[in-house]
Amino acid sequence: MGMTTTAPSLQGAMAAAAAEIDQALDLLLPAEEGPEAPLFAAMRYAAIGGGKRLRGFLVLEGARQFGVSRSAALRVASAIEMVHAYSLVHDDLPAMDNDDLRRGKPTVHRAFDEATAILAGDALQTHAFTVLAEEDTHSDPAVRTELVRCLSKAAGPRGMCGGQMLDMLAEAAGVPLDEPAVGRLQTLKTGKLIEFSAEAGAVLGKAPLAQRHALLAYGRDLGAAFQIADDILDATASTEETGKRTGKDAVAGKATLVGLLGLDRARLQAERLVTQARAHLDGFGERADLLRMLADFVIERRS
Amino acid sequence: MGMTTTAPSLQGAMAAAAAEIDQALDLLLPAEEGPEAPLFAAMRYAAIGGGKRLRGFLVLEGARQFGVSRSAALRVASAIEMVHAYSLVHDDLPAMDNDDLRRGKPTVHRAFDEATAILAGDALQTHAFTVLAEEDTHSDPAVRTELVRCLSKAAGPRGMCGGQMLDMLAEAAGVPLDEPAVGRLQTLKTGKLIEFSAEAGAVLGKAPLAQRHALLAYGRDLGAAFQIADDILDATASTEETGKRTGKDAVAGKATLVGLLGLDRARLQAERLVTQARAHLDGFGERADLLRMLADFVIERRS
Repeated sequence: MGMTTTAPSLQGAMAAAAAEIDQALDLLLPAEEGPEAPLFAAMRYAAIGGGKRLRGFLVLEGARQFGVSRSAALRVASAIEMVHAYSLVHDDLPAMDNDDLRRGKPTVHRAFDEATAILAGDALQTHAFTVLAEEDTHSDPAVRTELVRCLSKAAGPRGMCGGQMLDMLAEAAGVPLDEPAVGRLQTLKTGKLIEFSAEAGAVLGKAPLAQRHALLAYGRDLGAAFQIADDILDATASTEETGKRTGKDAVAGKATLVGLLGLDRARLQAERLVTQARAHLDGFGERADLLRMLADFVIERRS
Repeated sequence: MGMTTTAPSLQGAMAAAAAEIDQALDLLLPAEEGPEAPLFAAMRYAAIGGGKRLRGFLVLEGARQFGVSRSAALRVASAIEMVHAYSLVHDDLPAMDNDDLRRGKPTVHRAFDEATAILAGDALQTHAFTVLAEEDTHSDPAVRTELVRCLSKAAGPRGMCGGQMLDMLAEAAGVPLDEPAVGRLQTLKTGKLIEFSAEAGAVLGKAPLAQRHALLAYGRDLGAAFQIADDILDATASTEETGKRTGKDAVAGKATLVGLLGLDRARLQAERLVTQARAHLDGFGERADLLRMLADFVIERRS
């Protein structure tokens, strides 16, 4: 099947999943009531109604391989999207990347204020763990605690936070990183959370370890391809197309694989990663077709 | 027993517990190695070697009532102290309280920089949940999940983060809060985490619900008394005595019970809360003596 026939059904499925995730987030986040309402408003502004929901979609599709209930999968998808949203809110702060635009809207510290943005990010992270730990996520506490363990490791000092530190240090040093260092940075900063998103459905479904590992490996290659595609977009697309400021890697002198390898070789590497990602799904049947299409999609997209 | 004979043994026990908690944090936090070392250094700077460890001490003493292993109790004590430390790092930021001094040392954003402080706070929170979710904390995953659920609720939007939002809103409004509003603010901002610290040992020890609730109620009254004592110290003690900037509530026009009731009536209310706190321990034997002494201590301390 070529992209022309498969892409519409993937994009339809992704849009439907994004809408479901938004509904779930709407129910899971505190309602804008009471004296703390501005905090809840900032959390909702940051988390609801934006983005492709790549991570959430991975959770839902991973969970579908094992017949996990949609409501459980949506809770885990929402928790991961809360952590992703918190990381964007904090990354955008003046002391960090100082961005004014995110998903086509003013960033949280521009729409609210800096203190509220810090606090809303903090609270989104905390709330994600509440959602995972509550009984509605799975009747077996061993599953819930494993989800907490994996998400906190993916987002913590040896995961996303560590990657963000490397990114800041590289920018402060003004010396471009070499290819292994860029790879490590991206694995930590974005890769670990995408890996876990792909793996989470297998945890929820108490899948055999081999299948859990296959999904994790798929997520790893998909995440790496996604990151290269993101860097290519930053280098080539307009702010209007992506809804966030583009061209900023070059301005900031950030080392990316695009900068190190050039556009053509970076595209080739992304294609190789997509082929690898698809190969990890060989043991899965037709149910994994959307995951296969997604691998193609991450390097074809224009936003 | 009067304070003159009991206070020294309590203070010895608290100092010993603080040293044990520091050792545990030293083992549980990432070592200062690798390219992300500055992040790990900032996390360690924020979390290790400071403070009275009131929350950690409550965990350890609560756990002792039910014969919980010291190593398990120390992990939970460390996780709560990580969350407490993260909240201090973020509260001290320029966009929040803009403090230069904490526990007698420069605050994290002064000793490192603002971006590293934001990130170190984030990672301390995440890491706390990793520590709770790991098998070493308890062999029963139901216990680990319950600890995650309770800590995340105490620290989240309807707990500590909500309280911090109320504090910021009150300061921005410039209109002093009334007594119920101050009570609500303090319950959320500091009370919930102290409550859970007192309760956590009962969760670890799978204690009967009545005992778990008694410890939680003890923690609630102790936390309220502690907060009044803190406000009294801010109004009356010097920066040298407390190791942090004092007198700032009056400067900021913050509403505290001391400001609303005056020193004498605030002291009386704190004493009433201490009596209540001790009463919740009536069903516990001699093992709870340190918790009883602690209730007296929180309103006697000078730092």
